[in-house]
Amino acid sequence: MLSIPDLIRKKRDGGTLSDEDIRLFLQAVVQQNIQEAQIGAMLMAIWLKGMVDTKTMALTKEMMLSGEVMSWPEEWAGLVVDKHSTGGVGDKVSLVLAPALAACGLKVPMISGRGLCHTGGTLDKLESIPGFNIYQPLQKLQGMLEEVGCFIVGQTETLVPADRILYAVRDATSTVDSLPLITGSIISKKAAESLSCLVLDVKFGRSALYKDLASAKEQAQSLVNAGNSLGINTRAVLTHMNTPIGRCIGNSVEVIESLETLKGNGPSDLMELVTTLGGVLLLMTGSVSSLSEGSRVISESVIGGAALAKFQAMMEAQGVTNKDARSLCSPHADYYSVLRRAQHQTELQTHTDGVVIEIDGVVLAEVLHQLGAGRTKAGEPINHSVGAELLVSLGQSVNKGHPWLRVHFESPILTSDQTSRLQNALNLGGSGDRPLQGSLIEEMIPPL
Amino acid sequence: MLSIPDLIRKKRDGGTLSDEDIRLFLQAVVQQNIQEAQIGAMLMAIWLKGMVDTKTMALTKEMMLSGEVMSWPEEWAGLVVDKHSTGGVGDKVSLVLAPALAACGLKVPMISGRGLCHTGGTLDKLESIPGFNIYQPLQKLQGMLEEVGCFIVGQTETLVPADRILYAVRDATSTVDSLPLITGSIISKKAAESLSCLVLDVKFGRSALYKDLASAKEQAQSLVNAGNSLGINTRAVLTHMNTPIGRCIGNSVEVIESLETLKGNGPSDLMELVTTLGGVLLLMTGSVSSLSEGSRVISESVIGGAALAKFQAMMEAQGVTNKDARSLCSPHADYYSVLRRAQHQTELQTHTDGVVIEIDGVVLAEVLHQLGAGRTKAGEPINHSVGAELLVSLGQSVNKGHPWLRVHFESPILTSDQTSRLQNALNLGGSGDRPLQGSLIEEMIPPL
Repeated sequence: MLSIPDLIRKKRDGGTLSDEDIRLFLQAVVQQNIQEAQIGAMLMAIWLKGMVDTKTMALTKEMMLSGEVMSWPEEWAGLVVDKHSTGGVGDKVSLVLAPALAACGLKVPMISGRGLCHTGGTLDKLESIPGFNIYQPLQKLQGMLEEVGCFIVGQTETLVPADRILYAVRDATSTVDSLPLITGSIISKKAAESLSCLVLDVKFGRSALYKDLASAKEQAQSLVNAGNSLGINTRAVLTHMNTPIGRCIGNSVEVIESLETLKGNGPSDLMELVTTLGGVLLLMTGSVSSLSEGSRVISESVIGGAALAKFQAMMEAQGVTNKDARSLCSPHADYYSVLRRAQHQTELQTHTDGVVIEIDGVVLAEVLHQLGAGRTKAGEPINHSVGAELLVSLGQSVNKGHPWLRVHFESPILTSDQTSRLQNALNLGGSGDRPLQGSLIEEMIPPL
Repeated sequence: MLSIPDLIRKKRDGGTLSDEDIRLFLQAVVQQNIQEAQIGAMLMAIWLKGMVDTKTMALTKEMMLSGEVMSWPEEWAGLVVDKHSTGGVGDKVSLVLAPALAACGLKVPMISGRGLCHTGGTLDKLESIPGFNIYQPLQKLQGMLEEVGCFIVGQTETLVPADRILYAVRDATSTVDSLPLITGSIISKKAAESLSCLVLDVKFGRSALYKDLASAKEQAQSLVNAGNSLGINTRAVLTHMNTPIGRCIGNSVEVIESLETLKGNGPSDLMELVTTLGGVLLLMTGSVSSLSEGSRVISESVIGGAALAKFQAMMEAQGVTNKDARSLCSPHADYYSVLRRAQHQTELQTHTDGVVIEIDGVVLAEVLHQLGAGRTKAGEPINHSVGAELLVSLGQSVNKGHPWLRVHFESPILTSDQTSRLQNALNLGGSGDRPLQGSLIEEMIPPL
């Protein structure tokens, strides 16, 4: 049996850790029989040396087995599904998709995360709803799937503890963006949900973790392989991530946009992602016979209000009062009677005439982060009310002085630096210019 | 100003840390403004990516500046010298060389280390002498150099604290054998001694850290460059390390061999190292005009008893009673009237006739380590009395049944595994075979 320094040396020297080696390392991590410095060194060695696909699978499996694994009634076999996204600015797909899938008869035990740096987190968005409790006891979860069909909760202490420990170290040691470690982290948590089918939204482009299609495909293939190796029918959808998804960025403003989408008023890019990812899952579970049929069924559940009813039921099951939940879901809701509104709103105007060619979501998110919408370190509090609404669409012609961005903030003023950075996020072209726009969906792994 | 994760990322991605970056990292280490995992990750990134020579120099300088730096009277300018060895089985050169140099009028403020794994430590050897105190207050050190001319002490809390912290992490994370980290660790401590001249014994061969001359030369050049960059006239001597140095391996047995050497009865390999390393230092300080003159002067100080007198004075200055020190240094000393003798001694006999071709020092040291002579983790106690004496020389013809090794041990018996491993360390050849023996000195950097 190798010691921890032996295991580190083996990885450092480019050797292949055996399944037994990986188990030893993870057991030491979970049982705290290892120095933190040794975890840091091992993660850096993995970051720099990579892992072969079969060992990434072993890592994922051992991570899953480091804690509790959920189990579901036999009659749900084939129906338990989830979606995971690699993260993007304005990505509120889960808030619409989970209830839409529940409305279509699937079971969605969604364990989600918080935001870090410029990326938003589904849990933070939901927590901007007063009373919404993302911490639910494990024994309550099955009942929620029986009654509502979906839940969105945070990772518990007992679920994949290896990931919780490793993630904190990865964050501090610049070893987050490692292909095997990303796969292990994502798929181990999804596998602990005991899913039948999983769809992954792997984003690429200027605002995504993966800057080009090739690196996104490599990660997607690793995720799909690891998911399938643990018995989950897994498919990745590669999607463009250059401009924010939808019109809103922030926590409560994204909840409002999600509710509007569930009332049939969703932006087309968000609806494309929801119907495609949902359609793929319906097809994978055998609920429909084609992607187009699946997309139509999801779309109908959103447009027709069935998904909204599930969202309301989920809010109530997770602690929101019936009064607040009903109020948020009513046709002409006064959202700010329930959600907290930031103290200040200001609108930025365009500086010239032009056509909206591009909006840099990362720049917007970074300024909002500075204004309090995001956190730099895990555990920091955030301000759910800080956010921004885009008032223009890609391709739209605007005159100089046209309002294009509404910023919600709490600080007395926006600094000139913040204002100029926000203004620089808007790229206006000449009258002949057209935005590079089209479907957000690039391809699927494996192809349909 | 970069954050710690930024610094780690920069190194991870093969970038060059600036002098300012290195300072930030080391300040965080010493001020404990850094997570242990971040130290582990940074050390692994340095291990895997290396450092360019100028940055190794910057690392060394910043490590030195992390704590107190000694200062000496102006009249000693050019006279303060030290020697460092990369470590070998039976390496007791410091115990003879430090008093020999002092006897030649040089000042030798030697800060030494403890042994780890199979390598012996000068401090452990000295501590087998009752009363010898390797912890001396900083303010007493100058007086010791004035009165005796040399001391051999341990690293204090305030001297190069960065090295103390980093070394403990390197040991746990398999990042000890890194060229820039080795250079930083060795030279920062020597630079904190404010030396005029430094000679390095860089060992290569089967029993050394460096298995071949090329890797030893690379390390030697890095050490020499870093030393010179901090204003220390530095030279490396590359020496063969295949069989143990001298006849004794262990702590008290090596003290006895050192005392015998200081009484003029030293083995030729040990004397070659002492006179060469000492001769180089005498030449570098300008005390002599050639290496051969320097070697002769050192040899005379050893053979003539001047070095022995210095060793006795050093023992007394560092806490040994005058009675014990005198007793150890008397011509026909009963060493075990002062030093503790192990409970058991046993002699191994040769299994065949033959010529002694080779003795594997690492195997001998590993078995002795198991018997209690060494430590696996820093801070562990060791048994100073455990050791072994070689009873044959390389090239000697022996008959079957000739005693070749005397083992000093405390456990009731040697196990058959231990005995057979010890026996396998002896390589006997046919009557025509000759050992690969000759001068231990291969070359110098820079050449003389």
